[in-house]
Amino acid sequence: MTDLPISAELLAENNKAGEAALANDYASLGEQLDRRGIDIDAITRKVASFSVAIPSWGVGTGGTRFARFAGPGEPRGIFEKLDDCAVINQLTRSTPTVSLHNPWDKADPAALKAKGDQLGLGFDAMNSNTFSDAKDQALSYKFGSLSHADVAVRQQAIEHNIETIEIGKVLGSKALTVWVGDGSNFPGQSNFTRAFEHYLDAMKTVYAALPDDWRVFTEHKLYEPAFYSTVVQDWGTNYLIAKELGPKAFCLVDLGHHAPNVNIEMIVARLIQFEKLAGFHFNDSKYGDDDLDAGSINPFQLFLIFNELVDADHRKAPGFNPAYMIDQSHNVTDPIESLMASAIEILRAYAQALLVDRPVLAAFQDSNDALMANQTLKRAFTTDVGPIIAKARLAKGGAIDPIGTYRASGYRARVTEQRPSSGGSSSGIV
Amino acid sequence: MTDLPISAELLAENNKAGEAALANDYASLGEQLDRRGIDIDAITRKVASFSVAIPSWGVGTGGTRFARFAGPGEPRGIFEKLDDCAVINQLTRSTPTVSLHNPWDKADPAALKAKGDQLGLGFDAMNSNTFSDAKDQALSYKFGSLSHADVAVRQQAIEHNIETIEIGKVLGSKALTVWVGDGSNFPGQSNFTRAFEHYLDAMKTVYAALPDDWRVFTEHKLYEPAFYSTVVQDWGTNYLIAKELGPKAFCLVDLGHHAPNVNIEMIVARLIQFEKLAGFHFNDSKYGDDDLDAGSINPFQLFLIFNELVDADHRKAPGFNPAYMIDQSHNVTDPIESLMASAIEILRAYAQALLVDRPVLAAFQDSNDALMANQTLKRAFTTDVGPIIAKARLAKGGAIDPIGTYRASGYRARVTEQRPSSGGSSSGIV
Amino acid sequence: MTDLPISAELLAENNKAGEAALANDYASLGEQLDRRGIDIDAITRKVASFSVAIPSWGVGTGGTRFARFAGPGEPRGIFEKLDDCAVINQLTRSTPTVSLHNPWDKADPAALKAKGDQLGLGFDAMNSNTFSDAKDQALSYKFGSLSHADVAVRQQAIEHNIETIEIGKVLGSKALTVWVGDGSNFPGQSNFTRAFEHYLDAMKTVYAALPDDWRVFTEHKLYEPAFYSTVVQDWGTNYLIAKELGPKAFCLVDLGHHAPNVNIEMIVARLIQFEKLAGFHFNDSKYGDDDLDAGSINPFQLFLIFNELVDADHRKAPGFNPAYMIDQSHNVTDPIESLMASAIEILRAYAQALLVDRPVLAAFQDSNDALMANQTLKRAFTTDVGPIIAKARLAKGGAIDPIGTYRASGYRARVTEQRPSSGGSSSGIV
Amino acid sequence: MTDLPISAELLAENNKAGEAALANDYASLGEQLDRRGIDIDAITRKVASFSVAIPSWGVGTGGTRFARFAGPGEPRGIFEKLDDCAVINQLTRSTPTVSLHNPWDKADPAALKAKGDQLGLGFDAMNSNTFSDAKDQALSYKFGSLSHADVAVRQQAIEHNIETIEIGKVLGSKALTVWVGDGSNFPGQSNFTRAFEHYLDAMKTVYAALPDDWRVFTEHKLYEPAFYSTVVQDWGTNYLIAKELGPKAFCLVDLGHHAPNVNIEMIVARLIQFEKLAGFHFNDSKYGDDDLDAGSINPFQLFLIFNELVDADHRKAPGFNPAYMIDQSHNVTDPIESLMASAIEILRAYAQALLVDRPVLAAFQDSNDALMANQTLKRAFTTDVGPIIAKARLAKGGAIDPIGTYRASGYRARVTEQRPSSGGSSSGIV
Repeated sequence: MTDLPISAELLAENNKAGEAALANDYASLGEQLDRRGIDIDAITRKVASFSVAIPSWGVGTGGTRFARFAGPGEPRGIFEKLDDCAVINQLTRSTPTVSLHNPWDKADPAALKAKGDQLGLGFDAMNSNTFSDAKDQALSYKFGSLSHADVAVRQQAIEHNIETIEIGKVLGSKALTVWVGDGSNFPGQSNFTRAFEHYLDAMKTVYAALPDDWRVFTEHKLYEPAFYSTVVQDWGTNYLIAKELGPKAFCLVDLGHHAPNVNIEMIVARLIQFEKLAGFHFNDSKYGDDDLDAGSINPFQLFLIFNELVDADHRKAPGFNPAYMIDQSHNVTDPIESLMASAIEILRAYAQALLVDRPVLAAFQDSNDALMANQTLKRAFTTDVGPIIAKARLAKGGAIDPIGTYRASGYRARVTEQRPSSGGSSSGIV
Repeated sequence: MTDLPISAELLAENNKAGEAALANDYASLGEQLDRRGIDIDAITRKVASFSVAIPSWGVGTGGTRFARFAGPGEPRGIFEKLDDCAVINQLTRSTPTVSLHNPWDKADPAALKAKGDQLGLGFDAMNSNTFSDAKDQALSYKFGSLSHADVAVRQQAIEHNIETIEIGKVLGSKALTVWVGDGSNFPGQSNFTRAFEHYLDAMKTVYAALPDDWRVFTEHKLYEPAFYSTVVQDWGTNYLIAKELGPKAFCLVDLGHHAPNVNIEMIVARLIQFEKLAGFHFNDSKYGDDDLDAGSINPFQLFLIFNELVDADHRKAPGFNPAYMIDQSHNVTDPIESLMASAIEILRAYAQALLVDRPVLAAFQDSNDALMANQTLKRAFTTDVGPIIAKARLAKGGAIDPIGTYRASGYRARVTEQRPSSGGSSSGIV
Repeated sequence: MTDLPISAELLAENNKAGEAALANDYASLGEQLDRRGIDIDAITRKVASFSVAIPSWGVGTGGTRFARFAGPGEPRGIFEKLDDCAVINQLTRSTPTVSLHNPWDKADPAALKAKGDQLGLGFDAMNSNTFSDAKDQALSYKFGSLSHADVAVRQQAIEHNIETIEIGKVLGSKALTVWVGDGSNFPGQSNFTRAFEHYLDAMKTVYAALPDDWRVFTEHKLYEPAFYSTVVQDWGTNYLIAKELGPKAFCLVDLGHHAPNVNIEMIVARLIQFEKLAGFHFNDSKYGDDDLDAGSINPFQLFLIFNELVDADHRKAPGFNPAYMIDQSHNVTDPIESLMASAIEILRAYAQALLVDRPVLAAFQDSNDALMANQTLKRAFTTDVGPIIAKARLAKGGAIDPIGTYRASGYRARVTEQRPSSGGSSSGIV
Repeated sequence: MTDLPISAELLAENNKAGEAALANDYASLGEQLDRRGIDIDAITRKVASFSVAIPSWGVGTGGTRFARFAGPGEPRGIFEKLDDCAVINQLTRSTPTVSLHNPWDKADPAALKAKGDQLGLGFDAMNSNTFSDAKDQALSYKFGSLSHADVAVRQQAIEHNIETIEIGKVLGSKALTVWVGDGSNFPGQSNFTRAFEHYLDAMKTVYAALPDDWRVFTEHKLYEPAFYSTVVQDWGTNYLIAKELGPKAFCLVDLGHHAPNVNIEMIVARLIQFEKLAGFHFNDSKYGDDDLDAGSINPFQLFLIFNELVDADHRKAPGFNPAYMIDQSHNVTDPIESLMASAIEILRAYAQALLVDRPVLAAFQDSNDALMANQTLKRAFTTDVGPIIAKARLAKGGAIDPIGTYRASGYRARVTEQRPSSGGSSSGIV
């Protein structure tokens, strides 16, 4: 039996308050969609079957190089993080898995698994960390990890990744996500070719350690923490990695890791076409890798990405099997609230994309009717799919109004008492 | 009596087909908004009172430096352009004015005015052109116009602007829009300071020629046609111009004329605060000054801009009186269709912004509740305001479905017969 | 015997005036380099052996979508273009080949070859054009060419490319360069996957028509003339193309075709490593694809690119055999002058890169001495290699001061008389 | 008597080794410049008179939000920071002042002054810090400081700035630099107009506390730590601030705080023209506010900025009196080395700009000879001015080879023993 953090009574009570309005709005929307030839219940069922993972680190307050302003009741370890993740899933019913970060989330795997079972949470892709130095680590990653000039450092990073796989095996994970901060801050500091050779060699050893039913996801990032070059700078390099490694290697798309103006939905289409899309790290950004809440800055872009995903699903693109995770930094909000809101935005984009009339769109495309092709997408995007998402949530036992219910529950105040602050609210680096 | 291009019968017939569905959707939305404390009819009335100007050049097919692919039935002169503008206004009922371009639209002012009256069209801001050389022009603008190193060229450009004011006076226009292509392609080519001094001096002479009830709008542009520097490169320089010229000078915001990532809505807020916002040239872009259809790439940004405008109106910001115009380049669509679709997108953003609960938003802002402040905006944006805009259009005699009605009318085929192509479909420059 | 456009006497006279100073500067630099362990004459010989192609269209004046301001004495056809190219090569002795553009440069191949022989010019890669419509072309490329939804248009574009190969065979060219303007202006207009499938299918047919000793170069471009998506948008897609086509297919790097901030030298390194670098289209840019003169905006970036090329040459990278061409748009200068200046800037970057002490650099890289690795590059870059380039030019019969000699020759005034202007100075599109 | 950290004997010995080569190179360059009509000694004197301040925080190792990798021998407080600054100035003789940061550098002002006198260091602009929370601070800056919605937080930030002025008065500083991290991460979080009103009101109080002979410098930044909007986002807003505050208020230009592609040298020209340029925070960047070493990524841009400064000086622009400081984050190098290298790059750009033949440049500009105007700048930039800078350094008692001499001195090893590490090498935030 799962034991969830928010009281069932409170949830029921809050849902009761919103049920009539939801029923009304859902009926009106259903009628409208029916006129457009769309069965609202079929859409709702699809939305209900969609889920996105929460990264364990997401429930802590983030920061910048200038400062970190701690929030109240921050989780002090992986077990408390799981509690917070359980709140998110209980209320949104769309985030049933958690993605762990080695070494931060190290704990007795059996205890972790038991805690997950108790909260109704599973474990998603495992994340290694070679972009910072762990306590008592023998060699530093200051100048790189899997691509370091020194073979001993590369070996240490390889072993860390293999250890991460081992932990994941116990927890039932089926994928390893590798992101490295390797790169350079000065022209000349790094030999691009040698560094990439080192990286590929090291990753081949990690790849060889993957169980048969695992996949490895590599992640590109244009810059930061390295500021002149990064070893895996874009999807082109990421594709080369996946190709060199083999059929279990795939390319992750983090929405914030691209150059300005880049057409991300097109990258998604290319990776699907060449059967190398691993999945997503969802977030949003305005300037760089801002790690803002998914859908908060450019919701139409999120929709266009889902338009590619739904299209691939619709035409049964070979090898299409993306993994979804939120990856944000919450500096000014309660992370639980931000993650719930983001999960909803992701479902919104998915629901909107499901409304696109694909045969009609294809016909406009084939006849070069650019305006009507665009209108076809816009009609789906401008539809208020809120009732569909709420209905899907409700049907699965979640909240009609997750944020309102969460606030009403007093969860944050409760954990703030239970989790005394570690002290210093500011740990910026200047 | 106006004499409109689309048959009233056809319009009525097409509207009839959509009326029941619209009534239904409007009623449902009204009920939902009522629950949110919003009177839908008040919103509809505000939307109905909003209008945006069409630039005369917008109804022609655009092109790039690589090629121009002519469309069928392109207008061959200002009178045919006015016919096309009349279609847009007849069906959308939100574009009652046209903005002319001197010297391209030169014609007998009385005949122009009569034509406008016949079509129910007025004349908006007048645009001068010193970024290309007109036939038989004495001196070339190859190296600049109002900022040219040679005083004779500057004088010619000044006189052209004054002539543009003179034409506008007859037509009932009340504003002059000045955009120059002046700048440089090489570091060193231009002395930034001297060029700007020349520009300011020249503009002071133009300013002195403005009638008392006129305003002058200057427009900044980061780059293109000049590719290393432009004389009026950003809103900072544009503000300095307006400040130097005087109380009748204001700064135009063209959505495509900014550096990547720039927060345009914040620029709008600053210009409102310092009482120097002239208004807008609406379009959208993904990369540079792409001149794509308004709202087609980043509709949330358009909404955020309107959020500032509605906020300024709401708090009765001193001197707030923006002029609205669409300014796009239609390369792959029928310009009439694109302009109708864009006018609708602009109204959509306006309607969405009207739904924002401003006292609630202010309270969230004052209590640093970032998440709920954002949700307040998002709730307005995700509302499907289509029924409001359609109802406003219908109430004023327009079409429920402007594009469908236009296509049904056969207008394009008709004018294609009447307006034989001038020949060469391709006039790219390589 | 070649018959060159600039008088040998004038050239000799101009060189005489500069010889003493050059000898002095060369000797001083030689002494300094000797102290740094570098043999100046070895560098000079390498510089003397470097060449870069001129595109036939480069000697005409460029323009923008706003206007084109014609220059005096513009060449009216391919034979006059070759005359202008001969001036550039005569004075710089580094541009012995011309790259033609089909269909603009269509002419009797035998006559072209004879003219080239007479001027001492060879023919480089052939360029097809499917981004604009040629006169009397059956089907339009308005909505694409090799990726068009209609198979008939794709077939026409294939045939045009095959025709281009045929012309090149006669002229002694060994490569076809394919750049398409295909893409979309609206989300939804194009199905990314289908369009790319069409493109790949079409290119496979073109590829099959390549003679055994030919290569095909494909060129990516982030945007323009398409403004929402382009079919070959970045090096990732370009790499996929080269991989799909086969061993004769390679990826061109045009310096202006990337997203803002992108690290181009790293892309160059990747393409070298995976043996798919075709070569370069040199130019410079500040904002978008500005097509400014090579080295005029960011000369350090040009140096960093050559640093990769010299490094690849130094370590004898397998399959390393890049083709070099200048590809610029000259809107405000005499194209002959700009092309001469650009050829010199390219040689400058090459000469600077040759000065990098590679074993020392590698040692700093291996020991993570980021500062000294950077200083090693900077020392090469800050060296004034002007005397080396001038000496290399002089040794091959060129001018110490190409631009001064060109101006002294009166060539432009002479051809201005011979080539009456076609009339309209302005052909902008608005 | 000053007591400098590097032994005079070692310095003399190292200089001796390089003197002959320097004399040779200086003489050759002198001869070349003489041919170009330039007196090398006059240039050297100007270079020798130029100085740039070091920020106290610059001598510590920087980090990113992901990690900080401590370097050996990091200074543990302001007195050790001053020691490190003294090394930089002793060897480069171009950084005689230090800019302090309140509250980090709080100490007995008399002791600070004595320490500065002992090391031959003065105190430059004072920096306040309201972008992170100091220990035991009453109210948090999590949601802003001078623009905070709560008047009590604003008051606290005002008082902190006034305190910073008070400290500076004792130390002989004459300027206060104000940079705030205020802004928002979500659309809607902040009301742009109210926030800016708050900021202006607060700054007016700070301004009123300035001594008569002080100036206040405000600094704009496009983004980070706030990621959707910042209160002082660009030079346009910064100019408005300086204008609103009064004649003692000026605008700082940090090279990394602009949108991609922005023409920074033009902003410098505008601020000079309108008499509001405060000065610079020098650094370089490739992607965002990367805070890389000055001149390491785009040295030509640095030159173009100095071209504006030298031009303003040359024409005696009214009110022209810029303050210069380096502001970088050193993550992978020894900060002392990076700061010495950066000071040299800044002097290099200044020396190159001094070589521009300004009357000749003006003539090319006036005759629209874009190519020769550009060549005039490029000729100055491609000159190897290394000997001039080294000679200027040597003449003032510094090192011909500052980095080589520093390494030979064993300073870092010495202080590493004296300054035991505080422990944790990694303090990243995820």
